[in-house]
Amino acid sequence: MKNKGDHMLGMMQEWPLLCHKVIDHAAIYHGKREIVSRSVEGPFHRTDYAGIRERSLKLAQRLDRDGCRLGDRIATMAWNTWRHLETWYGVLGIGAVYHTLNPRLFPDQIAWIMNDAEDKMLFVDLTFIKLVEMIAPKVPSLERIVVLTDDAHMPETSLKNVVSYESYIAEADGDFAWAEFDERTAAGMCYTSGTTGDPKGVVYSHRSNVLHAMAAMQPDMLNLASRDRLMPVVPLFHANGWSTAFSGPMTGCAMIMPGAGMDGASIYEILTQEKVTITAAVPTVWLMLLQHMEKHGGKLPDLSRVVIGGSACPQAITKAFQDDYGVDVIHAWGMTEMSPLGTLCSIKPEYSHLEGQEKLDLQAKQGHPPFTVEMKITDDENIELPWDAKTFGRLKVRGPAVSSSYYKGRGAEQFDAEGWFDTGDVAHVDSYGYMQITDRAKDVIKSGGEWISSIEIENLAVGHPDVAEAAVIGVAHPKWDERPLLVIVAKEGRSPDKQSILDFLDGKIAKWWMPDDVIFIDEIPHTATGKIQKTTLRETLKDYQLPTG
Amino acid sequence: MKNKGDHMLGMMQEWPLLCHKVIDHAAIYHGKREIVSRSVEGPFHRTDYAGIRERSLKLAQRLDRDGCRLGDRIATMAWNTWRHLETWYGVLGIGAVYHTLNPRLFPDQIAWIMNDAEDKMLFVDLTFIKLVEMIAPKVPSLERIVVLTDDAHMPETSLKNVVSYESYIAEADGDFAWAEFDERTAAGMCYTSGTTGDPKGVVYSHRSNVLHAMAAMQPDMLNLASRDRLMPVVPLFHANGWSTAFSGPMTGCAMIMPGAGMDGASIYEILTQEKVTITAAVPTVWLMLLQHMEKHGGKLPDLSRVVIGGSACPQAITKAFQDDYGVDVIHAWGMTEMSPLGTLCSIKPEYSHLEGQEKLDLQAKQGHPPFTVEMKITDDENIELPWDAKTFGRLKVRGPAVSSSYYKGRGAEQFDAEGWFDTGDVAHVDSYGYMQITDRAKDVIKSGGEWISSIEIENLAVGHPDVAEAAVIGVAHPKWDERPLLVIVAKEGRSPDKQSILDFLDGKIAKWWMPDDVIFIDEIPHTATGKIQKTTLRETLKDYQLPTG
Ligand SMILES: Nc1ncnc2c1ncn2[C@@H]1O[C@H](COP(=O)(O)OP(=O)(O)OP(=O)(O)O)[C@@H](O)[C@H]1O
Ligand SMILES: Nc1ncnc2c1ncn2[C@@H]1O[C@H](COP(=O)(O)OP(=O)(O)OP(=O)(O)O)[C@@H](O)[C@H]1O
Ligand SMILES: [Mg+2]
Ligand SMILES: [Mg+2]
Repeated sequence: MKNKGDHMLGMMQEWPLLCHKVIDHAAIYHGKREIVSRSVEGPFHRTDYAGIRERSLKLAQRLDRDGCRLGDRIATMAWNTWRHLETWYGVLGIGAVYHTLNPRLFPDQIAWIMNDAEDKMLFVDLTFIKLVEMIAPKVPSLERIVVLTDDAHMPETSLKNVVSYESYIAEADGDFAWAEFDERTAAGMCYTSGTTGDPKGVVYSHRSNVLHAMAAMQPDMLNLASRDRLMPVVPLFHANGWSTAFSGPMTGCAMIMPGAGMDGASIYEILTQEKVTITAAVPTVWLMLLQHMEKHGGKLPDLSRVVIGGSACPQAITKAFQDDYGVDVIHAWGMTEMSPLGTLCSIKPEYSHLEGQEKLDLQAKQGHPPFTVEMKITDDENIELPWDAKTFGRLKVRGPAVSSSYYKGRGAEQFDAEGWFDTGDVAHVDSYGYMQITDRAKDVIKSGGEWISSIEIENLAVGHPDVAEAAVIGVAHPKWDERPLLVIVAKEGRSPDKQSILDFLDGKIAKWWMPDDVIFIDEIPHTATGKIQKTTLRETLKDYQLPTG
Repeated sequence: MKNKGDHMLGMMQEWPLLCHKVIDHAAIYHGKREIVSRSVEGPFHRTDYAGIRERSLKLAQRLDRDGCRLGDRIATMAWNTWRHLETWYGVLGIGAVYHTLNPRLFPDQIAWIMNDAEDKMLFVDLTFIKLVEMIAPKVPSLERIVVLTDDAHMPETSLKNVVSYESYIAEADGDFAWAEFDERTAAGMCYTSGTTGDPKGVVYSHRSNVLHAMAAMQPDMLNLASRDRLMPVVPLFHANGWSTAFSGPMTGCAMIMPGAGMDGASIYEILTQEKVTITAAVPTVWLMLLQHMEKHGGKLPDLSRVVIGGSACPQAITKAFQDDYGVDVIHAWGMTEMSPLGTLCSIKPEYSHLEGQEKLDLQAKQGHPPFTVEMKITDDENIELPWDAKTFGRLKVRGPAVSSSYYKGRGAEQFDAEGWFDTGDVAHVDSYGYMQITDRAKDVIKSGGEWISSIEIENLAVGHPDVAEAAVIGVAHPKWDERPLLVIVAKEGRSPDKQSILDFLDGKIAKWWMPDDVIFIDEIPHTATGKIQKTTLRETLKDYQLPTG
């Protein structure tokens, strides 16, 4: 009998939860399952899990030979392709840390992030060579740059110490064994999207990634089976790639990697050509796809479900997918800090009778968490609030794949003594545990001491036939402190007026939630992950005079 | 940045994988989901996860007050009912160890096992009071016996320190918090079935139970969703209840507990009345159900799948379920030492085109493992054998829910330096990782230096229309060392002869596998979990003279 302290331990094997065991499993039990990519060079590329593992081993061997060690940060700035996936597993397999960079950030922001993380190497797609030429000189820790291509496609570049991926791994024979280490070892880094301020560094462990993937693949969550063909449109650099780099291989499903082709036509082509059964991305991607199909026609006979999250999924998207294309929508909520999946809106038996508008209303909620995610809502004094589907408060979470702190100790105020992490989101929860985000804490509008949910008004406004996008922000008001201002981008060729928008909202929300004004602008500012940047919007409109004020 | 040794750790929360968190999740997110039991007293009983948790907390509080401590063994001898489930979680919630006893063992065996485990308390069903009256005096460590009933149903008994479950927990108000401790703490104990020798003690940890349930519920395994209604016919005392006590609540599916009603009529009644969608048990249970339905008619409109394991599932059962009742069969292999699930025969895309006999032949295999189970086959010298669907060898496994040793260090020869556990089974594996058990190592027949699979011959023989059960054992032979003897139990009212059996096998197996003789007996000896007891059969027939020998 093994004892630790003075009590009896289980007599079960030590088998650390290490990410590279996931690709081993895939290669052994699903070795021939297809991994199809739209390559950055152009043509489609096909490999399988056995191939991915073989080349990841070569990369690991080469990294090891080059002196990469446990804990070293290796950055990637890359689209979703087989080479990016290999890079993750090669890095993970020696205990180094993959660090995904979002190329849509400003160059200075990227340089700041790379310096913060002290990245030692960078694996980069051809697309971003010019960008990296601007950044690299500002990142002294960077020792080498690997371009995710072959020698034939290597570009002219001013970059130093640069090599093609194919020639880099060609020098290894793959006769190499993954490293073994503690499951709490750092596995990956990803900075938050920077919607509410500067991006903050999140550090995943091997354990958190593995547990998170095990929770994510289950029937009430992503419901991934080996018979699925999964296309992560969400980039690996957005919030840990929504776990697809782990939950896909763990399941052994086929993976379709869309590369740089993120427009409606490209997504439609690969979805149908590769018979994708499940896909995932932020709402804007799906808007582009739906607009493409509206214009050019199209059907989605193989696609069974689409996971939508990152920001609230407008009901019009859910309705179009379900009613027009027979594709189930799974609304999801997560954050970089949660690895990232927090809740998914799958249908519990209590709700399985819902149809039509009632079902759509349920699906507007962000859903319920799997085992391993704990959730509560509290007021500002940390008192728990009831789950009555209307009382909203600060959403706090806990679990083995939730951050315990940010890199370098930033944002300590978001973590409390009992281990709860304040998500910065505001939400209500119903009696069956379905959570609905009503706002970001920083975006909440406080009118006469009461809270108004900006997201709820926005979701309604985009249902207006002439509205393309909508944002609600709080504007200073002499009597009420703050009142809502509705900012609208009209659909191409349409010009709705203020009154028609207000009439449309009338009766759908409480009278005192009605925006005090509606304004029309050409473009709403977005973050690098495609979210509405309310900080910028508020800054621009900080002197706006409400007609009521 | 947290460091351990000299490398970077992930910055993710400490959130130990503890079993009682599973019932918390169920009570919070699936609180009203039904738990229906056929009570031992007779009537059906209905509760829900919130109710189970509430009463488990009371039990934990009472156990704590009575001085039960981390690591104490608490035995149960009970059918599957809500009270048994509460007992597990109550025990787990203070860090004590549930220890399931198989009432079908001989009283002396049970006493030996209880003394080996040093059980401190026993929770027992009314059914087994007389049995426990024989055993209890021989188990000096036993301090108290709780009868899983209420005061009104308490029997006359000679037992000392005995109390009804309902009055035991009534003294606690439930204002109690689960204990927190290391996830490697012992959670449960279960002794192996004793098919090949004396039962050996297996000790589960909280971590192994939780990881095992997370692996078990995924789409390619049990595929459990909150919309399911799961009936574990397999008793909680058989091989950790096949994980249902954890994977059920973790999923939040309804649970239907069949109590003591294990006959065909009772199983049919509860399956249909409670609209069970998925159920699990050993083949003999399903034989009884199928015979019942054959005789009395019946349909299974709600049942979508049945998990069959514990011993090889005869093809006739699979065929009847699928062709006659439209219920999918999932063949499963596991062992007490594996928590217990090792492989399940779900259909990978490579095989999804199979129909009819080809599909049945695939389903005769025990299937493929989930992530967390590693598997290999070796020869006697520990050299790995190829996965070609015919070469068979010793099946070895590794994983976080696989035993690292038996209780009190027994059977150390089954564990090697690299952590592989020798299952004692002999199997071949195909190129997609589908494993098929051909024998127990101890049952393999060695004829002229070559191995003959007894299970394969048995599986074929039970396909004969007049055969109820079949066992093949090796009998001494002067020239070949050992030759197969086929032992048959005929179906009621049938009397097949030797030649018709041999004719039936002819052409289906290699010539040199053909049994040298066929004998007919009234009953084949079974173990307490319903498996053929070949040790006994070999003992009885050890002087049998083959006509060829
Ligand atoms: N389905 C959804 N509905 C509404 N909001 C969502 C949804 N999914 C994600 N979000 C929002 O996205 C946030 C997580 O996004 P992410 O981790 O990419 O960074 P961010 O919060 O946008 O940026 P930062 O934390 O740097 O300000 C959540 O906290 C939530 O506010
Ligand atoms: N689907 C199956 N087909 C064939 N054999 C199976 C199947 N499922 C389980 N088994 C057999 O059951 C064994 C595990 O059973 P269990 O843990 O209940 O104890 P046991 O092996 O029967 O008894 P003991 O280990 O004490 O001799 C496996 O090792 C295997 O031999
Ligand atoms: Mg954030
Ligand atoms: Mg055994």
